[in-house]
Amino acid sequence: MSRVWNFSAGPAVLPEEVLRQAAAEMLDWQGEGMGVMEMSHRGKAFTTIAAAAEADLRELLAVPANYRILFMQGGAIAQNALIPMNLMGDRKVADYIVTGAWSMKSHKEARKYAEVNVAASSEASGFTTVPAMLDWKLSADPAYVFTCTNETIGGVEYPFEPDLANIGRGDVPVVADMSSHILSRVIDVSKYGLIFGGAQKNIGPAGLSIVIVRDDLLGHAMPDCPTAFNYKTVADNGSMYNTPPTYAIYIAGLVFQWLKRQGGVAAIEARNVAKASLLYDFLDASDFYENRIDPACRSRMNVPFFLKNEALNDAFLAESSAAGLVQLKGHKSVGGMRASIYNAMPLTGVQALVDFMRDFAARKA
Amino acid sequence: MSRVWNFSAGPAVLPEEVLRQAAAEMLDWQGEGMGVMEMSHRGKAFTTIAAAAEADLRELLAVPANYRILFMQGGAIAQNALIPMNLMGDRKVADYIVTGAWSMKSHKEARKYAEVNVAASSEASGFTTVPAMLDWKLSADPAYVFTCTNETIGGVEYPFEPDLANIGRGDVPVVADMSSHILSRVIDVSKYGLIFGGAQKNIGPAGLSIVIVRDDLLGHAMPDCPTAFNYKTVADNGSMYNTPPTYAIYIAGLVFQWLKRQGGVAAIEARNVAKASLLYDFLDASDFYENRIDPACRSRMNVPFFLKNEALNDAFLAESSAAGLVQLKGHKSVGGMRASIYNAMPLTGVQALVDFMRDFAARKA
Repeated sequence: MSRVWNFSAGPAVLPEEVLRQAAAEMLDWQGEGMGVMEMSHRGKAFTTIAAAAEADLRELLAVPANYRILFMQGGAIAQNALIPMNLMGDRKVADYIVTGAWSMKSHKEARKYAEVNVAASSEASGFTTVPAMLDWKLSADPAYVFTCTNETIGGVEYPFEPDLANIGRGDVPVVADMSSHILSRVIDVSKYGLIFGGAQKNIGPAGLSIVIVRDDLLGHAMPDCPTAFNYKTVADNGSMYNTPPTYAIYIAGLVFQWLKRQGGVAAIEARNVAKASLLYDFLDASDFYENRIDPACRSRMNVPFFLKNEALNDAFLAESSAAGLVQLKGHKSVGGMRASIYNAMPLTGVQALVDFMRDFAARKA
Repeated sequence: MSRVWNFSAGPAVLPEEVLRQAAAEMLDWQGEGMGVMEMSHRGKAFTTIAAAAEADLRELLAVPANYRILFMQGGAIAQNALIPMNLMGDRKVADYIVTGAWSMKSHKEARKYAEVNVAASSEASGFTTVPAMLDWKLSADPAYVFTCTNETIGGVEYPFEPDLANIGRGDVPVVADMSSHILSRVIDVSKYGLIFGGAQKNIGPAGLSIVIVRDDLLGHAMPDCPTAFNYKTVADNGSMYNTPPTYAIYIAGLVFQWLKRQGGVAAIEARNVAKASLLYDFLDASDFYENRIDPACRSRMNVPFFLKNEALNDAFLAESSAAGLVQLKGHKSVGGMRASIYNAMPLTGVQALVDFMRDFAARKA
């Protein structure tokens, strides 16, 4: 077996230790005589696994006691509908900050359920930056302010936490789609009303969504919100109103344990800074490649880049793949290349990418 | 490693061959240098896996060309809302046949979206039978007739296919929740408008739902149906409008391949008949145990039974578990015991259960 360096934007690379443990336990979890996939979600073995996963996530992100952690299904795209369905309550308007493809998609879906005010947008810049909070034009009484704090496709990450208290609107809950950078950096959960993300980038398998929600935001769902997706119902039933994605929760739990062994979020953040710096510094020093994002807002997780001579794109992809560096093709809406370097991608993987890129440039320049 | 006999109602036992292959491929699927959980859902490797799973399911159930197979999330409980949200169209009424806990739950959820007519119910019998089609009181113009063709909790299975042509109403689409017996017996898909099920009983891991829908039923979703759960959107995007539960689809695909190696659905049905007969014949011949379901409507998959002396329940559960026969406790709403004997439970497992039960009775009678 030879593992490649997998730069997929998601589903994405997982820690080898996690995969080895999952393989070893596939037919028999800790002497239970069955694998996790075969366990009743109501049985003691699985409820132990789920409770540990939740407790570890709570510890890793220092989630305050007045926030609930929900394990859901449907990914961030489902949440784009479920957030207004659950949070609008009696309010008419929701505010959206549009910073790229994902927040664009989110605000379009929300229009089905609410009057949407685009309070700020970086579209004029080609989505290469994040509007400063002082320029956010919030409406008078929004149900929430929606943010996508890391845009996976554009490679744009908030360089600040969107704490509305900084602009005198601390009463309005901030909703944050953190799908592609959750657990990659230290955050202050108390600054948000709701944090959500699909697991398949920085946590675990596709098919699991994480929702972290302040408990006063529960209980306001629209009548036509499917019961399985009513946050209060999910919370009241410990994420087991419907059968949860048990195996995905188990893998997420193994990833949380792995993160704790790495030293937790602050430690992994330091490594992520080192990895991103290595790649961005190389790009900035190069005449052959470029990154077009405002340096202050560059994502540590998703690094889009271009060959200045785009005629070499196919050769770059073919040769990098042959060298064991895969999934580097950029999203079709952006073009060029993209390297996603999530928590599970080690510095050696980024170094291998930079080494290849330097060699390729030397040969083709 | 010692495997137990796992009679869980779901998530449930999976074929050992499937688990062994999944474990072997966890870090490297067929030389790709990555596991299936790490693969981009848009990449060639995973789209090959998903296409094979769909093709194998289509072959196993002989799904006609005018039906679409959707891989979704949220389980049968989510579908309880999504079915009326997608199928009501301009119609006002949906008809429901209530035969136990699951169809009861389904029709309650549907009331949020439609006028619901309970066209038949076996509640008066304590949900021990299935109302004959001649007694179904369908409304004049229902959007569909909902059936749960195997009630997992009650242990009641339709002894006939609910073909509305038999009562002169072949124009009305039948919707069938087959979560707990899909692929356990030969069915004629063309008799249904929509078949659905959570995968975690007879197919694979929790977190995957299968929807098989006739294509003329697509495109009628209510405006407030979340886009990720709009059947037409899901179908138009090959179940990849949102990131699908990739690993669960992979495991389901391995189960489909295993089923084909077993000889397909007709062959597994013959084994299921033999397994169910062994257990029901033993129960019927016993003075110590009993099954209370109308013999014509007994489920081949979920076999609830009672000790006539219920004071022995705890001893039965403790001793069976010690003997490696686990998850036999009945659902709390029914009491007693329940043995779920899905496709992946071999005859030897059912024989082990009967042997234990005979021995226990002999010792305690």
